[in-house]
Amino acid sequence: MEGAGGGGGGGKKKPPPPQLPPINPLRVRAFFVAAVLTVFTSSLGILTTLSQTGGGYKYDYATVPFLSEFLKFMMCAYLLWRESKSSKPPSITTNWKSVCLYPIPSLIYLVHNNVQFATLTYVDTSTYQIMGNLKIVTTGILFRAFLKRKLSMLQWMAIVLLAVGTTVSQVKGCGETDCGSLLSAPLEGYLLGILSACLSALAGVYTEYLMKKNQDSLYWQNMQLYAFGVLFNMARLTVDDVRVSFAKGPWWLRLFNGYDLTTWLVVLNLGCTGLLVSWVMKYADNIVKVYATSMAMLLTMVISIKLFEFRPTLQLFLGILICCMSLQLYYTPAESLVDQGSPPSTKSADSLVSESTGKRKNSSSQ
Amino acid sequence: MEGAGGGGGGGKKKPPPPQLPPINPLRVRAFFVAAVLTVFTSSLGILTTLSQTGGGYKYDYATVPFLSEFLKFMMCAYLLWRESKSSKPPSITTNWKSVCLYPIPSLIYLVHNNVQFATLTYVDTSTYQIMGNLKIVTTGILFRAFLKRKLSMLQWMAIVLLAVGTTVSQVKGCGETDCGSLLSAPLEGYLLGILSACLSALAGVYTEYLMKKNQDSLYWQNMQLYAFGVLFNMARLTVDDVRVSFAKGPWWLRLFNGYDLTTWLVVLNLGCTGLLVSWVMKYADNIVKVYATSMAMLLTMVISIKLFEFRPTLQLFLGILICCMSLQLYYTPAESLVDQGSPPSTKSADSLVSESTGKRKNSSSQ
Repeated sequence: MEGAGGGGGGGKKKPPPPQLPPINPLRVRAFFVAAVLTVFTSSLGILTTLSQTGGGYKYDYATVPFLSEFLKFMMCAYLLWRESKSSKPPSITTNWKSVCLYPIPSLIYLVHNNVQFATLTYVDTSTYQIMGNLKIVTTGILFRAFLKRKLSMLQWMAIVLLAVGTTVSQVKGCGETDCGSLLSAPLEGYLLGILSACLSALAGVYTEYLMKKNQDSLYWQNMQLYAFGVLFNMARLTVDDVRVSFAKGPWWLRLFNGYDLTTWLVVLNLGCTGLLVSWVMKYADNIVKVYATSMAMLLTMVISIKLFEFRPTLQLFLGILICCMSLQLYYTPAESLVDQGSPPSTKSADSLVSESTGKRKNSSSQ
Repeated sequence: MEGAGGGGGGGKKKPPPPQLPPINPLRVRAFFVAAVLTVFTSSLGILTTLSQTGGGYKYDYATVPFLSEFLKFMMCAYLLWRESKSSKPPSITTNWKSVCLYPIPSLIYLVHNNVQFATLTYVDTSTYQIMGNLKIVTTGILFRAFLKRKLSMLQWMAIVLLAVGTTVSQVKGCGETDCGSLLSAPLEGYLLGILSACLSALAGVYTEYLMKKNQDSLYWQNMQLYAFGVLFNMARLTVDDVRVSFAKGPWWLRLFNGYDLTTWLVVLNLGCTGLLVSWVMKYADNIVKVYATSMAMLLTMVISIKLFEFRPTLQLFLGILICCMSLQLYYTPAESLVDQGSPPSTKSADSLVSESTGKRKNSSSQ
């Protein structure tokens, strides 16, 4: 897609006035959804930490995604029912071939979880976390390769900068003792880390393809997605139970064990985040999601300084600066980025300056 | 000056083919000089470290800049003499008013050194080093304000990124014990650090103004600059001697005490670096110098890994990545940065994708 970001539309618009592009309601809504997604993703991390007791969970954490998938499914069922009553009934594709495409994201995540597990046998968690930022770059690559979206050089640089920025914010600071072994893990660890980043990106890019491939109602598409999500999570809970020979009883009997208000907020938050991501996938794109989740990670770190008394670090500040510049590079229209304002003034300069403008223009552009 | 970098020339050239701008000999030479300057600046740091014995200097370090200024003066005198024999004699301005402008850079550096000293009474050396990167941004600001050079938003972002990149590379790593107190120094320390960055930038910007203000021979301009450099350094050595009541004898009698081959290489290197900087100031600009010195710092760190067995860090790698992207952002012509290649393909996509290209173009440009 040309003009995937503002940077692309450059040459096509007529020059004056480049500062005032027409306000598009979908663009405004996408911006709003991305902002809300950022806040929700960020608060998810914080709520999850708050739901812990003494560093662990009193409830079975695997029940949280199950319940949130179920919640999302029910909400979309209700919304689809409401939509079907409206004057313009929703478009619904029910053939088997189409439905078959919906379990694939869940399957990719299943493989991803196993690769993640394998990676962690080779590398420590902080190295794993650092390598996780590769996902930003792999998303860009698969976005280009599979969805055929053209990105300008500037947008590629913005994507790499975003990955660099999030990594910078995670650099372990001076005085920390658990230093990990970032540059000394075995090769298998790095390869698995790259595979993990590719799978994670693939799931996102595939979901975008799925949501955009036809004009079906978003709620109907979501219902199919979440139905498989519910099934996969039920299977996972059952497998977990089988592994311990149902020592704690079947999962459905202890589903809400240890749940309190915070746990319910985690479920609700996870559900809302999922719905927002679906919306972004259908009406915006993977890059918007990547920016929202990256910004959310930084926001979480900032809030953690206040909430959990984390030490503010220089690298967090630098990371935020880099990510904000990346965001600006990706989404600012090209004409405002390269515009140099009014013509040059040679007030302060004398003969050589005005004489050699052309000369220096070149010499300084090395 | 418009088009101070390649990023600015954007809209003025006719579009096809944007990939092949005419090769300008001065531009090629500026690129070459900047590369050599980078190597020389980098090796200066390494040679200076190599010239130390047991963490200290066996020679009086203050004699090094004196000798290098003297060396540069002599070299320029010889080159000017040669130039005067050529068919096109050099342009030389000798009036008193013009000569009076040349001691000013030395005076600024004198004030700068004292501010630097004052800053270090409030902050530790690593905080001082980190704050030193502010110089990159202040150079951009003074370059814009005093020399009236227009910079595009992209070039401003490149300058900030360069400062961020060099700072990232200097973030103290995990496991280091001497952590400093970066975020807890008194306000005076930060203010003095900013003043120091402004003075350092002012010296650079003023020198560029001086070198470009008329078409005088570079060698004649240098001779005036270095004559005052020699005088100021002599004054400094004398003041140092007076402070200890000539306990070690006058400086001119112990000028070469403790000098060995490495020390002479430091003098030679400092001299060559100075000559290259003068060339850059006359035929290129301060931004070229800032890039060369920043890249040199990173190069020094990379070489130090091999030479002094420094531990390679993630932050160094990230810093190099950021600085390289900054360089590309600043100097790549705008049209290649925003070009998205061939028109979009909708091969992978179905109805909605092709139908809503315009829609998504906007929604994703939030």
